[in-house]
Amino acid sequence: MTPVDGPGVVKRSEEVEGRLVEAGTATTMRPLLGESDGAPNFAMRLFSMGEGGGMPRHTNRVEHEQYVIRGRARVGIGDEVHEVSAGQVLYIPAAVPHFYEVVDAPFEFLCVVPNAEDRIEIVE
Amino acid sequence: MTPVDGPGVVKRSEEVEGRLVEAGTATTMRPLLGESDGAPNFAMRLFSMGEGGGMPRHTNRVEHEQYVIRGRARVGIGDEVHEVSAGQVLYIPAAVPHFYEVVDAPFEFLCVVPNAEDRIEIVE
Repeated sequence: MTPVDGPGVVKRSEEVEGRLVEAGTATTMRPLLGESDGAPNFAMRLFSMGEGGGMPRHTNRVEHEQYVIRGRARVGIGDEVHEVSAGQVLYIPAAVPHFYEVVDAPFEFLCVVPNAEDRIEIVE
Repeated sequence: MTPVDGPGVVKRSEEVEGRLVEAGTATTMRPLLGESDGAPNFAMRLFSMGEGGGMPRHTNRVEHEQYVIRGRARVGIGDEVHEVSAGQVLYIPAAVPHFYEVVDAPFEFLCVVPNAEDRIEIVE
């Protein structure tokens, strides 16, 4: 492949502004890499959940590939519940109900999603 | 979206078998999540580089979204060189020459790529 001169992107995740996740509790999301960096296919986000934090059981329209960076949480995927900590990876297919309950805060994980329309729907 | 029963995947990254990266030095790659887990769009891999390790200047046919987990390295992207450590994220567009030189080992980073044909070409 002919090498091209293209801009790479290097940044510290702490410098990326976070926003509160409305559907969650004590949960912020930092959009680390995505379309605004020129990335054509998928986006990497960093979720941070504080004491007592989490997300209720919900579905997304897109799949998640996740890597746990620090802390500990109970994560429900479909009918199974897992306790996860640093170094664990999770794959959550589109439309599969899932939830998060923080055990040791802060619970931080990367979540990669395709560049596609998403919607969070809470599942009772 | 109608919730579906689908298998999620949860595993420890240390339990995923690594393989030596032939084009690199003291570099192993663990395929954490990808098509074999049912993931349709992209794959998450964990690279670990030991003392004196790295990858020579090369191109790929696919873009990279990366997150540094531990250690320190000099990373060249195009004409720029960055020293990176834990918490830093990198976007390397397809076809842009890049290299890695370990400064503090082990240097570990996640690298997410689309599910598409790739080829490593070394660039002088």
